[in-house]
Amino acid sequence: MLKAIQIVGSSSGFVSYRYRFRKPQPNSAFSLLSRKPIFTTSETLLLPASQLHCHNSCFRDFRMSSTHSSSVEIQSTGNIRKINFCQFCGGPNKHEIPDGEEKVRAICTRCGKITYENPKMVVGCLIEHDKKILMCRRKIQPSSGLWTLPAGFMEIGESAAEGAIRETWEEANAEVEVQSLFAQLDIPLIGQTYLIFLAKLKNPHFSPGPESSECQLFELDDIPFDSLAFSSMLVTLNLYIEDIKVGRPKFHYGVINKRPGTSPSEIRAYTLDFHMQS
Amino acid sequence: MLKAIQIVGSSSGFVSYRYRFRKPQPNSAFSLLSRKPIFTTSETLLLPASQLHCHNSCFRDFRMSSTHSSSVEIQSTGNIRKINFCQFCGGPNKHEIPDGEEKVRAICTRCGKITYENPKMVVGCLIEHDKKILMCRRKIQPSSGLWTLPAGFMEIGESAAEGAIRETWEEANAEVEVQSLFAQLDIPLIGQTYLIFLAKLKNPHFSPGPESSECQLFELDDIPFDSLAFSSMLVTLNLYIEDIKVGRPKFHYGVINKRPGTSPSEIRAYTLDFHMQS
Repeated sequence: MLKAIQIVGSSSGFVSYRYRFRKPQPNSAFSLLSRKPIFTTSETLLLPASQLHCHNSCFRDFRMSSTHSSSVEIQSTGNIRKINFCQFCGGPNKHEIPDGEEKVRAICTRCGKITYENPKMVVGCLIEHDKKILMCRRKIQPSSGLWTLPAGFMEIGESAAEGAIRETWEEANAEVEVQSLFAQLDIPLIGQTYLIFLAKLKNPHFSPGPESSECQLFELDDIPFDSLAFSSMLVTLNLYIEDIKVGRPKFHYGVINKRPGTSPSEIRAYTLDFHMQS
Repeated sequence: MLKAIQIVGSSSGFVSYRYRFRKPQPNSAFSLLSRKPIFTTSETLLLPASQLHCHNSCFRDFRMSSTHSSSVEIQSTGNIRKINFCQFCGGPNKHEIPDGEEKVRAICTRCGKITYENPKMVVGCLIEHDKKILMCRRKIQPSSGLWTLPAGFMEIGESAAEGAIRETWEEANAEVEVQSLFAQLDIPLIGQTYLIFLAKLKNPHFSPGPESSECQLFELDDIPFDSLAFSSMLVTLNLYIEDIKVGRPKFHYGVINKRPGTSPSEIRAYTLDFHMQS
């Protein structure tokens, strides 16, 4: 069980939640078999709540303070305090920790319904064709003019694979066959998880969809690493190329943590943590 | 690009969306390397919108009609029509397809903001200890009294692995070390994706948390298959046992589709589609 011990909020929209396990566990910090342990430090993220629900390049300035602690702590960010009204009855919300819960929620003062926030899944395809990779140049913000793999938000009613196929059709007018899940990359700071599937073109036809200005097959040596749209794409492509060098692609899980004080356009300013291969 | 061609709604709250690609693609239905092709049939799911956002056992009666089609279609369900008010300004929503989009959304008639619905991630752990598996007997609905692996909704600000560790602590007071992602199981009907990690106990201590009445280590032959809480757990445990029989666990991706006309408690009434191992 988690116990909220600190909530930092201000009228400027900066929100930070800090959680601590009710029963301190000396020398028992949870860990992952990973490059960077978690829960062993106390980290406070401050970022404008208004920027927490934009697309994956919406890393803005944030501060991270790190102090060692023998107890187990979890930080959580969100813009729950901007959810002012109940979406079901229109009543005004209050922002409190409900009975039996551990986190501040938006609770309707009229009908009592609770609004939850949850991370979103972004689904896409890494399409292999004749030892090349299909990429799209974005025609919309964020990161307009930069290159990405076709990907977008998973919708209610579809599977991740169906969503990845749909996004590929929408962005590159390309029909693909999904072959395996290549990477799951969590980005906790912005509440997103990327799910990238390996896929093959069903035919050699593709063209830019409404959100793309250009679609192109790139040899691995020619991938436009200097003009990629997102850190998630940089990580995905790097992992893929590393795998290809030594054999064939594996499944990767990892957490992309942006370096403190960097902007969204600094796509190399991240650490890949808790990286595991299957 | 997708084009909405049919929206079925009624005052009883039954909602169904049907999508078709703008440009029909004869003989070009998208496919996955899987047991069951998708997009090759036209399927209409009807289910009460009020039941779309409950927990994973909320399979209720639904109808599925299947007609062959040479064009590519996607079905999508959601309860967007129950989102009546803007959560930011409190204004009344209208339910329309916004310009440049393909799906009905809730759009505020006062401030213009759009409310999106996205699938949620459920994260949990399959904990191996002395060739046994740690399971929890649920003390809350849904499926109170039945057995599950510790799992729950992923929160904003945490990674999937962190969420799985947190849920294990909350439900079983157990400290675990995550080792790899074992399964991603999408359940499109209820807009949920299960992410189950293999994990080890850091020490042999565990006890029921507030949502559990009992926690127990089970030999694989003694797993309570007759009293499991959810189809997702049945699939996960079956995949795990199959893997153990022939070697060691692999990563699995799959889609759990409940059989038409079955109830949530019929946890065996599903098909596992698009199953891929890595």
